[in-house]
Amino acid sequence: MTTQEKFLTWAYVRRVVEASRVDLLDMLWPDGWDQAGPSQVRAVADALARRAGTLPDALADATSQRYDHDPTADAELAAARGWRLVTPEDDEWPTELTASFVRMADSGADHDSSVRGQAAAPFALWVRGDMRLDTAVRRSVTVVGTRAATRYGEQVTKSFAGDLADAGFSLISGGAIGIDALVHRAALQSQIPTLVVMACGLDVPYPKAHAELFEQIVAAGGLLISEYPPGTPPARHRFLTRNRLAAALSQATLVVEAPLRSGALNTLNWAEAFVKPTFAVPGPVTSHASLGCLERIRTSRATLAVSARDLIEELSPLGEQMALGFGAEDRSELLNWEHVAVIDAAALPSGRGPEGRLPQLVEATGLPARTVIRCLRDLEGMGRLRREADRWIRVE
Amino acid sequence: MTTQEKFLTWAYVRRVVEASRVDLLDMLWPDGWDQAGPSQVRAVADALARRAGTLPDALADATSQRYDHDPTADAELAAARGWRLVTPEDDEWPTELTASFVRMADSGADHDSSVRGQAAAPFALWVRGDMRLDTAVRRSVTVVGTRAATRYGEQVTKSFAGDLADAGFSLISGGAIGIDALVHRAALQSQIPTLVVMACGLDVPYPKAHAELFEQIVAAGGLLISEYPPGTPPARHRFLTRNRLAAALSQATLVVEAPLRSGALNTLNWAEAFVKPTFAVPGPVTSHASLGCLERIRTSRATLAVSARDLIEELSPLGEQMALGFGAEDRSELLNWEHVAVIDAAALPSGRGPEGRLPQLVEATGLPARTVIRCLRDLEGMGRLRREADRWIRVE
Repeated sequence: MTTQEKFLTWAYVRRVVEASRVDLLDMLWPDGWDQAGPSQVRAVADALARRAGTLPDALADATSQRYDHDPTADAELAAARGWRLVTPEDDEWPTELTASFVRMADSGADHDSSVRGQAAAPFALWVRGDMRLDTAVRRSVTVVGTRAATRYGEQVTKSFAGDLADAGFSLISGGAIGIDALVHRAALQSQIPTLVVMACGLDVPYPKAHAELFEQIVAAGGLLISEYPPGTPPARHRFLTRNRLAAALSQATLVVEAPLRSGALNTLNWAEAFVKPTFAVPGPVTSHASLGCLERIRTSRATLAVSARDLIEELSPLGEQMALGFGAEDRSELLNWEHVAVIDAAALPSGRGPEGRLPQLVEATGLPARTVIRCLRDLEGMGRLRREADRWIRVE
Repeated sequence: MTTQEKFLTWAYVRRVVEASRVDLLDMLWPDGWDQAGPSQVRAVADALARRAGTLPDALADATSQRYDHDPTADAELAAARGWRLVTPEDDEWPTELTASFVRMADSGADHDSSVRGQAAAPFALWVRGDMRLDTAVRRSVTVVGTRAATRYGEQVTKSFAGDLADAGFSLISGGAIGIDALVHRAALQSQIPTLVVMACGLDVPYPKAHAELFEQIVAAGGLLISEYPPGTPPARHRFLTRNRLAAALSQATLVVEAPLRSGALNTLNWAEAFVKPTFAVPGPVTSHASLGCLERIRTSRATLAVSARDLIEELSPLGEQMALGFGAEDRSELLNWEHVAVIDAAALPSGRGPEGRLPQLVEATGLPARTVIRCLRDLEGMGRLRREADRWIRVE
């Protein structure tokens, strides 16, 4: 296929399904959707367009309204506006994105009901902006919060987002009013790329009040990202799908201010399902806008963050922490019994013994997947374990 | 001994040592200070007064300045003012008080340096007020906080203390300005007994501004308590010793507002050393007055409390919770792997197998003593384990 043919084919497939689905992923990558690289997209597009017999019934049903779509207009719009469509076939596809869904599937945990059954990895992203997507998210934190931010929420968002950006983390958020916008603006202020993950087409300025902010973000080297084709309006279910993408792209998710019912907590659920670090900023117990954060801290579903340093310490490898002036002596104390259990369950350098994959580590240690992941990160930072693909191996 | 002789003897011993000491306890109860009941106080008083050879050198040294004290004045003052001296020989001595120190010794945990080496149980308490001491503390929470309370701290203290009192918990605090006084006043408001644990003699109104508050507390059925003989002025080391007593008397300790360095956190250290539940109220990360609470929550040394209900749920037996309208279904989910580990390590009803005492449970499960204690409380509430003296036995 030519580049243009490939673009049209992916744009077509992305257009005819509303949301990513496992049956579609299985068709696109018959050897496993966890393997990035060449796909069967041409055959899949043909099957979708011709309603051929190889199409699973459920997928045929789900695409019955849109299969005759012509992607030419999408291609023309993209060419005119400088958008691209990034897929696992491209070098800039972030491996972390697919890896998040692999970890979710492997962890075998009982996920929050809000994320259960929606676990299909994205297969194509509309992107606007110059930076490579994988570079932009390599060292990143998703920072989200309530639309109805209080003055306290605004204050802590500026402080946390500014400090994270100053420490070199790109900031991912949803572009919404309230906390999200403060996050993006803090990144602009610190001249660090920021990524807006949208719940609508790239040409739909939502919310309208942020049209200029989005232009500033792109001008400053940031990215606008969406799974949705041009012209798609925002909708409730698209916000939830968007939250999944925002959490999958980054190293960790931080909620700065959220009431008990909040889309920001849905993003945190996703980060949890992807077995990534989750953080929340506490606030007054008298403020409804903080009760969602407090609930997550109380139930140990998020780590309490007093300042950005709490995230920076946990997300930075050991050597970098020391360069940042955080004492190594603090970390050396971290070899607790959980760490020891995880080391004992990891693979041996000889290749004999345990396999060292996450599900085995969880089973062998009897610890929650979340705890194992935290220990793995600690131990990698301490140089006690190293990673090879999805296996964890002891460093002797 | 007559009652008066006994009083004089205890008052003398209490007067000649500054703080309780293990060598003294060993003399008072040669069969173990963990056994309440008859003591060798007469022989000990004789040995102290005569500087006899049976006196350990360290104890002789420590009492060399005061051994010739005449307790008659103490007795006269007590008679005139209606004070009493409560010891483990009295029915009203709270078993929980001694049990706290037994648990501390048994847990074998590495205690915070602020409590290490000061672990001798009290052996005599000066008490003013009508209520029996054991009755007053049977269902009680120690609530403490900073002297430099913010408006937020005042607000949450009134709310938490009022709700705890309304739920029938007597409130123990230190009578200090700031948070402590708000705690006592909330109890008065709710017509629930409140206990002031003093760092000076009962006749020393400290702080002076609270002389009237202390009278109100006694008039309302509450108690003033001190280990220190009449006339003893407050001093820094006495505040620390007082904190130990405040934490030992209650079921749990709550810090409502405390900066990173605060006497309230010392009280929390003691509760932790006594393997009792510890709670802290979060606050804004921008408020220095809350940073001590946040630090304890972040490091899992205190449970985050959003409202008094968080304490009431944890401290009330299951049946009572249901009567209070808290759902049993929440509790049934609590059988996590830690619970299962603790059940497996507990004694069998047959009497064979594990002993089921705390040190064995800690060793067999590999869990921190604090976690084991929390599980034991949960499992007792669920009816999965029952307690027999200091042994935990499975309910089949």
